[in-house]
Amino acid sequence: MNLIVDAGNTYVKVAVFQGDKMLFDESFKKERFQEKIKKILKTHAEVDKMITSSVTKLSDATKQFLANLDIKVLKLTHETNVPFQNNYATPETLGVDRIALVVAAVTQYPKQNVLVIDAGTCITYDFKTHEEIYLGGGISPGIQLRYKTLNLLTANLPLLTPKMPESYIGNTTESAIHSGVTVGTITEIDGIIDRYKEQFTHLTVILTGGDANFLAKRLKNTIFANSKFLLQGLNNVLEYNRYND
Amino acid sequence: MNLIVDAGNTYVKVAVFQGDKMLFDESFKKERFQEKIKKILKTHAEVDKMITSSVTKLSDATKQFLANLDIKVLKLTHETNVPFQNNYATPETLGVDRIALVVAAVTQYPKQNVLVIDAGTCITYDFKTHEEIYLGGGISPGIQLRYKTLNLLTANLPLLTPKMPESYIGNTTESAIHSGVTVGTITEIDGIIDRYKEQFTHLTVILTGGDANFLAKRLKNTIFANSKFLLQGLNNVLEYNRYND
Repeated sequence: MNLIVDAGNTYVKVAVFQGDKMLFDESFKKERFQEKIKKILKTHAEVDKMITSSVTKLSDATKQFLANLDIKVLKLTHETNVPFQNNYATPETLGVDRIALVVAAVTQYPKQNVLVIDAGTCITYDFKTHEEIYLGGGISPGIQLRYKTLNLLTANLPLLTPKMPESYIGNTTESAIHSGVTVGTITEIDGIIDRYKEQFTHLTVILTGGDANFLAKRLKNTIFANSKFLLQGLNNVLEYNRYND
Repeated sequence: MNLIVDAGNTYVKVAVFQGDKMLFDESFKKERFQEKIKKILKTHAEVDKMITSSVTKLSDATKQFLANLDIKVLKLTHETNVPFQNNYATPETLGVDRIALVVAAVTQYPKQNVLVIDAGTCITYDFKTHEEIYLGGGISPGIQLRYKTLNLLTANLPLLTPKMPESYIGNTTESAIHSGVTVGTITEIDGIIDRYKEQFTHLTVILTGGDANFLAKRLKNTIFANSKFLLQGLNNVLEYNRYND
């Protein structure tokens, strides 16, 4: 049984998998890390391996805690074995979350051209070919960042809570910002998908991340929305490395 | 002869028009305001009226300087007479630069559906119908803001100088950011234009602002790039109000 840990800047997401099946997942603040992991390991005594993915460095206390656990812990890095050929020119700068998303794409959609779009703090685009070659992608500001920057870096615009406007033609400053950010993000994503479709026929598109549900039903292109894709990808990495001791 | 003054946060743009013809234009730092205006009025003694547009409040010294000039000075506000019907629900919050752009659209493209896209610090979208009714539009972060926010509001991404990547599939962190920002902005704009074209046939699109030249040759839609559209619009406002004393 597998314990998956995805540590972000503020929150930690965890999940327990039996093979490919997710038994449960939850999210909590970083400060509760040790308490929560201990509890999960007690409740799920069958957990025998664990994978950690972190966008920032783990604290020394957390590292010590993980080293003292009685199970195998795999720390995902750019050197971890993965089931695809990485054509990124600077693999050491490729975020581990993007590596996990590509592994999910390779494992769940083998022999297909797959574009994974993760709409979170940033919107990341990651593409692997039907030959399981990862080519790279793009990074643009996520919806929250767009709202924040309009307020922070201009003189007169307010900070708004994300909302889909009634019309794409905003007739107040608020609705104009809502249109520019949300409709703008939607047309950006649809346009990027179109670029890939022009070059790669039979493209499968996966949409994940915190804003996936907000965006999914508004895109013109057909996509698969899967909010658990990153956790699944981490589990796929762990399964792929189970005999690599 | 008309003197046009567009005061931004840091720079002031000025132009001199004879009727509809721009004789010259230049840009300088705010601090040099009085010195530059005096020099222009000396060189172009035929200037008899002036319009000022400012996104921020002018200093008391600048206001006093303008009040003491020997020519008629029109300050553009949301109460200035304009040749279109303003359906904006909150006209007092509509930026004066956006008012000037719509006046340019009405004056230069009468009886046409016109979308004006100003790609500067922000990207503003402004639409007027063939019946000269202004409906509103959108506001999204400009190219510079997107680069800045990726660096400022995330943990690990560098601040880059805008550049069009060789491929829309970035294979380094740098080229992935260049793709996400520049290709993303291009597909956003093309997608927004498409939305308007679906609803309004025979759409004319004007692209202006600091990033107009960078973007113009890369859009799929046919647009008119005109970097002087705002100055022309201010001149159009001044001409429209010439007999309103």
